Amino acid sequence: MSAADRPISALPLPDREDVPDGVRRLWDKSLEAFGFIPNVFVAQAYNAEQFQAWWNYFNLLVNKEGHLTNAERELLAVVVSGINQCVYCAVSHQAALRFYTGDPITADQVGVNWRQADLPEREATLAAYAEKLTLTPAQVTAEDLEPLRAVGLDDHQILEAVQVIGMFNMTNRVSTALAMVPNVEYHSQDRFTDVDLTSRP
Amino acid sequence: MSAADRPISALPLPDREDVPDGVRRLWDKSLEAFGFIPNVFVAQAYNAEQFQAWWNYFNLLVNKEGHLTNAERELLAVVVSGINQCVYCAVSHQAALRFYTGDPITADQVGVNWRQADLPEREATLAAYAEKLTLTPAQVTAEDLEPLRAVGLDDHQILEAVQVIGMFNMTNRVSTALAMVPNVEYHSQDRFTDVDLTSRP
Amino acid sequence: MSAADRPISALPLPDREDVPDGVRRLWDKSLEAFGFIPNVFVAQAYNAEQFQAWWNYFNLLVNKEGHLTNAERELLAVVVSGINQCVYCAVSHQAALRFYTGDPITADQVGVNWRQADLPEREATLAAYAEKLTLTPAQVTAEDLEPLRAVGLDDHQILEAVQVIGMFNMTNRVSTALAMVPNVEYHSQDRFTDVDLTSRP
Amino acid sequence: MSAADRPISALPLPDREDVPDGVRRLWDKSLEAFGFIPNVFVAQAYNAEQFQAWWNYFNLLVNKEGHLTNAERELLAVVVSGINQCVYCAVSHQAALRFYTGDPITADQVGVNWRQADLPEREATLAAYAEKLTLTPAQVTAEDLEPLRAVGLDDHQILEAVQVIGMFNMTNRVSTALAMVPNVEYHSQDRFTDVDLTSRP
Amino acid sequence: MSAADRPISALPLPDREDVPDGVRRLWDKSLEAFGFIPNVFVAQAYNAEQFQAWWNYFNLLVNKEGHLTNAERELLAVVVSGINQCVYCAVSHQAALRFYTGDPITADQVGVNWRQADLPEREATLAAYAEKLTLTPAQVTAEDLEPLRAVGLDDHQILEAVQVIGMFNMTNRVSTALAMVPNVEYHSQDRFTDVDLTSRP
Amino acid sequence: MSAADRPISALPLPDREDVPDGVRRLWDKSLEAFGFIPNVFVAQAYNAEQFQAWWNYFNLLVNKEGHLTNAERELLAVVVSGINQCVYCAVSHQAALRFYTGDPITADQVGVNWRQADLPEREATLAAYAEKLTLTPAQVTAEDLEPLRAVGLDDHQILEAVQVIGMFNMTNRVSTALAMVPNVEYHSQDRFTDVDLTSRP
Repeated sequence: MSAADRPISALPLPDREDVPDGVRRLWDKSLEAFGFIPNVFVAQAYNAEQFQAWWNYFNLLVNKEGHLTNAERELLAVVVSGINQCVYCAVSHQAALRFYTGDPITADQVGVNWRQADLPEREATLAAYAEKLTLTPAQVTAEDLEPLRAVGLDDHQILEAVQVIGMFNMTNRVSTALAMVPNVEYHSQDRFTDVDLTSRP
Repeated sequence: MSAADRPISALPLPDREDVPDGVRRLWDKSLEAFGFIPNVFVAQAYNAEQFQAWWNYFNLLVNKEGHLTNAERELLAVVVSGINQCVYCAVSHQAALRFYTGDPITADQVGVNWRQADLPEREATLAAYAEKLTLTPAQVTAEDLEPLRAVGLDDHQILEAVQVIGMFNMTNRVSTALAMVPNVEYHSQDRFTDVDLTSRP
Repeated sequence: MSAADRPISALPLPDREDVPDGVRRLWDKSLEAFGFIPNVFVAQAYNAEQFQAWWNYFNLLVNKEGHLTNAERELLAVVVSGINQCVYCAVSHQAALRFYTGDPITADQVGVNWRQADLPEREATLAAYAEKLTLTPAQVTAEDLEPLRAVGLDDHQILEAVQVIGMFNMTNRVSTALAMVPNVEYHSQDRFTDVDLTSRP
Repeated sequence: MSAADRPISALPLPDREDVPDGVRRLWDKSLEAFGFIPNVFVAQAYNAEQFQAWWNYFNLLVNKEGHLTNAERELLAVVVSGINQCVYCAVSHQAALRFYTGDPITADQVGVNWRQADLPEREATLAAYAEKLTLTPAQVTAEDLEPLRAVGLDDHQILEAVQVIGMFNMTNRVSTALAMVPNVEYHSQDRFTDVDLTSRP
Repeated sequence: MSAADRPISALPLPDREDVPDGVRRLWDKSLEAFGFIPNVFVAQAYNAEQFQAWWNYFNLLVNKEGHLTNAERELLAVVVSGINQCVYCAVSHQAALRFYTGDPITADQVGVNWRQADLPEREATLAAYAEKLTLTPAQVTAEDLEPLRAVGLDDHQILEAVQVIGMFNMTNRVSTALAMVPNVEYHSQDRFTDVDLTSRP
Repeated sequence: MSAADRPISALPLPDREDVPDGVRRLWDKSLEAFGFIPNVFVAQAYNAEQFQAWWNYFNLLVNKEGHLTNAERELLAVVVSGINQCVYCAVSHQAALRFYTGDPITADQVGVNWRQADLPEREATLAAYAEKLTLTPAQVTAEDLEPLRAVGLDDHQILEAVQVIGMFNMTNRVSTALAMVPNVEYHSQDRFTDVDLTSRP
């Protein structure tokens, strides 16, 4: 069985005729824009109304113009998804981080361990906060916000960062629970391919 | 300083005149319905548009008629919030669980440890799944859905349960990050007060 | 089966005629003083002589006049029992903490997470030490006593605090092992009931 | 500074003239019986009355004739003290385990990892239960008692085992908190010295 | 500072003239074969004799013909390096896994979480064993070898697998301690680049 | 079955006639030098060529003259093996630490918990680094090398220390996987036996 034949979710998928118009439009728009429909748009649409409410929130918080840059929000996504070891989210948001930063090397490294990725101070501070809030929420207090302020984040940016970290702690668990498989396109999107060695050490 | 004077969030609160109409209406409606405005409605409204998108999703997923009963969804909320040790969510959703079950004893016990709360099999199975998906998402696979199916949950209920567990893994982190304080009313809502002993062993 | 019918221990309970006089007197005294016999007095009395030796120590260390106030000792009890998620100890000692402080809101919050309970510095320092000694004893050294001294605890108080923390690490495990059920009276003892809202958000 | 000069506790030690008669008698009796006074008898006697109550309980539970053999109780002591990495308790109770079993090899191995010590089934079952109740009390339920019953333990023995496990979870934390140093005699007590190789691989 | 300017080790690097002939030959051979010298060959050669002894062992165990296939050994490398979050080892051995399997999608997925990578039974069994031996060695016993035997591994293969798992638990720590940076070539080696989408969802 | 009859490995042992000459010579040399063949020399020689490559590296790194003293390297061995709870490595390297330091008391204490062993600053700093690199490699960065430098370690010593820590993270896992049993001689080697008390408290 090739990867393409592997079921994309552990739950049933909705038929095109059973989903609300809005979902069908989202599918069509994705297909046109990216050449594929992200599997999350199909898998979660099995409970269609709840899917639409989630997507409205996710899309506003993560993709649209916000208080943080898109690259900063995708950095948080990759850090959290790496810690929670969610294949769907890690693979798809590493692609997004590559897209927004044009830097596949850092994206690969953050996917493994942000501490070893030589991040600038502001990014490293965001990553450290994301790690603590993800792994040990019970130990987080208001004092943990101070390093974020010290690198120049304002209160609106902090509230957005906190929600993005929370959001990926949600989506990592939903994607994992459903055993969702990332679309194959994500693996190669926005990779540089200048260097092309096929031999190896 | 009394509990009432403690700031309800580590971030600034929005002024009534600065929030969109929809937020003001929600505040007014809460005040009328419960006698108070849940602090989350004020604290998160500092980024008002994102708050509204979150509330639309949360309210649909957790409060409105869904695939699971309200008591089942509040059970998941209390289990997850207890594990993540989020004071705001644990206190407010224990109140909600008391409201929907009329059973403050079980609500108290689930708040500490669902394993010691003598839950019926279906509830215990939901709680066990919520615990695993919260604590060790990286170890969850599609096979973990089987016990949920074995106690009679259908696929729509499973997808809803997974999202509710995910949601509280999000809100626990947001509430903790902001050091949100639960409204005092939650502590005593829907407690039975027949037994009234003031001495103690 | 109602909560009242649930067995209070996973082990057999001793008959009134089989226990030593001292145990019977304790039972009678409790019944008179509180209106009920704490389940621990029955469950542990199955090995009666060991129970009496334990109770002599526990009662002296936790309840009688000591170096710390009763409220401080119950704070330690609630912090440790919350971390160890012991329903019997958490429920019964949250009641005791409410009794000694008259503050059910703080008792509820410490039961979930002392870091989010806005404790005064001395109490927060005791709670932080209790948490470290409970969760990671292997990492504790004599240096960890310095913050306790810095908030004014003398050496006798420190030795008592250390033993109280140790004691609840013991009783939490014994109560959990026996699946002990807290007497229903503990759930409502010493709660304020001024606020009485039955609706909820 | 030689080991003999190292302070045996991080807290002050009581003077001989300041402790109650019972404590002095215990010191004298130990000196006569073992040639030394166990440091715990001095360090904890700083709060003398509480020390006496603790010793009465500990001595009855761990040393006197009980439901389990002394070797079984010392096995539990060594397993728990090893997990909690308490030098005072591990060193002194490994000596006690050597004394009661005459088997220093197994005592050394249990001190490191009971799983690799080739224990008979009954001992291995006790050790496994002690490990779970020590490390993850929140996950223990009444069902965990079944393997103990399956290897022949009766309910009185189970209650005693549970208390011994609890006791060392207490004393490990007290000894660690006080940075207590084991008497040097414990290191060599009851070791076989037939094999005497001084070279090494 | 571009990635290329980042120091490849936290320790000094040896000069070409200071290393033994054997090390210089290895450098030259690598440059010829791969077009670059793996940074590990430079960084670890600061203690040149120990480096050579390590490389002789590593090369024999991991790269040369052995009892397991190269792909199987690289699978173990990627699983262990992912768990230990070692950027140098994860990036370089994901490249090696892509080379030996020709399957970049599975390599990416195993890098995040082998449980979600749809591995065949034999590979999944090796990965599960590698995870347990890496994360909780104290809980491993001889019984854990049974699933390896059940999927057809013989004793020589098992001993080799165990050593490979051990080896990456060593190299992950050495590379992390030195803050070693993977050569940029590893990031793109042996990736398929058929799909070339630059837009993203 | 006595300890002597217990199989020393979970895998088959090689016959004397099947191993390469070099292995036979190592066996004979050990027998002559120590009076026994360390079980690791037999158990791992089942894959003889890989064993020899490992031993060449291990012997050079841990036993021969290096940048650190033998006692320092054995301290690292005992700290790491204690954390990983490997009976073979802990027992045999505690013997080696006793041999090199002539201090069985400290060796016993480090075997349980280096924090409670009253180590001099340089040894304590090495032990603390070994603990962090063993338990949480993902959190180690180049900054963690600073305390090692502050107690006077040069870069060659640091690189050796890092490799020794790595090595025992490897051998602990290999020895555990094979359920290797330490030779009985290790238990009593280089113990002082001046104090000889057979009674106990």
